[in-house]
Amino acid sequence: MVFLNGKFIEKNQAHISVMDRGFLFGDGVYEVIPVYNNKIFRLNAHLLRLQTGLDSVKIKNPYNLKEWGDILSKLLGFYNNQEQSIYLQISRGVSNKRKHSFSNLTPTVYIESNPLLTKTKQAFKAGFSAITQPDIRWHRCDIKSISLLANVMYSQQAKEKNVEEVILYRDNQVTEGATSNVFIIKDGTLFTHPTGVHILSGITRDLVLESARACHIPIKKVSFSMDELNAADELWISSSTREIMPITQVDGKLINRGNIGNAWSCVYSYYQSLKNA
Amino acid sequence: MVFLNGKFIEKNQAHISVMDRGFLFGDGVYEVIPVYNNKIFRLNAHLLRLQTGLDSVKIKNPYNLKEWGDILSKLLGFYNNQEQSIYLQISRGVSNKRKHSFSNLTPTVYIESNPLLTKTKQAFKAGFSAITQPDIRWHRCDIKSISLLANVMYSQQAKEKNVEEVILYRDNQVTEGATSNVFIIKDGTLFTHPTGVHILSGITRDLVLESARACHIPIKKVSFSMDELNAADELWISSSTREIMPITQVDGKLINRGNIGNAWSCVYSYYQSLKNA
Repeated sequence: MVFLNGKFIEKNQAHISVMDRGFLFGDGVYEVIPVYNNKIFRLNAHLLRLQTGLDSVKIKNPYNLKEWGDILSKLLGFYNNQEQSIYLQISRGVSNKRKHSFSNLTPTVYIESNPLLTKTKQAFKAGFSAITQPDIRWHRCDIKSISLLANVMYSQQAKEKNVEEVILYRDNQVTEGATSNVFIIKDGTLFTHPTGVHILSGITRDLVLESARACHIPIKKVSFSMDELNAADELWISSSTREIMPITQVDGKLINRGNIGNAWSCVYSYYQSLKNA
Repeated sequence: MVFLNGKFIEKNQAHISVMDRGFLFGDGVYEVIPVYNNKIFRLNAHLLRLQTGLDSVKIKNPYNLKEWGDILSKLLGFYNNQEQSIYLQISRGVSNKRKHSFSNLTPTVYIESNPLLTKTKQAFKAGFSAITQPDIRWHRCDIKSISLLANVMYSQQAKEKNVEEVILYRDNQVTEGATSNVFIIKDGTLFTHPTGVHILSGITRDLVLESARACHIPIKKVSFSMDELNAADELWISSSTREIMPITQVDGKLINRGNIGNAWSCVYSYYQSLKNA
């Protein structure tokens, strides 16, 4: 079952008009929200970011916090898996006429939920690979928009190169991954690109920082260069579905001789405790 | 009537799955093709650009040139207006699962046609206004992609400011408009940003250049600065629905004291003759 515009229906019955501005213009925003032990994780943080995104693109939020909570709870009631990943998308709605500018429309709301298959610590400890590419995306990466063609092309490259992620750099400074935030540890300090228009302010990014604080790791929200990436003691990516993933190889070169670092182990463990809190 | 995936149907019956990657990722490309005197204008140029765009994003073209021609002719048969604007969109198709990377899917093809209301020469001669904004779009503006949220936001600004277009600049060089190409005339020479990743290689842009040649206007495909824009003798924008539109006011300041220039008059007249050729 999925949720579409106020109704719970079978996914194969979920259709929208071709005039939906999500389809014609990529005109909408989305969230991916994990569910652990049947509990929606950091729901308020996701709904707050959703609101910020909607405000940025001038789409009216169709529901208040309580209504969102009720809809998501009801949707999760259709599933048995305790660990889920909710996908929630709001587009500007259906126009009569294709025109870039818009008037007040009724937003289209689509929500689905799928089993979340979290990796075990053992699986994480094998390490993952990434490649790097220039960041050609627009200058509002803080908006979690559905205009995702650049991210699609990067993710396809990752798939074709058989790596986990494409890490992006703009003016030689690492911004984030195509579908993740990026962190390095150097001499015991954690570095990550500051929030702003060039990265998504990830909810999992915040949780990584929260976990790093709990591990007494100093944090610098300062961007780092490609050279600094390559010379890092540890390299991680984060997203709500990947959690905190150690990257041990970039562009074919090993990070920390291919070993998982101690900082990751501590941060990972603390993050697991947050999930189960 | 519209065309959707091989069928001619009523527009209000034209629905797609929520899992269409056009809706989830803005994952597709489009064309807008004018029809004059019941004849599709520069169809081959549009279909060639469509092919280039499809290749760039690795979507297989579902039809060959003859099949496209047959479909469009059949669609136009449902309309009486001699002047039409065809909108044609191809998205990557419907996935089972939302995932950025893709496998081989059957593309979704949607085509509609609407009456094209061309302005009279008299209406053009009143001149139009524009504002300027930093170009925050991605670095593949040569792809006519449906991931258009930046263009949507600019067009909405234009609407709210009651101007025709938002003219964009990157590193102080004018690139193009949110939904048009941009040209200036200075000391008798026409300047326009060269093709490449920062502008769309507009079919109407090519026709403007063809018309300028016919008017013996020297052409420099060289970018120009914001200062050069403001000091221009003439300023035009072009798109398939706007044709060649003279802009006489930018950010509230007059271009050429608010007068339409001679170069525009010649180029406009030649362009009209091409339409009717």
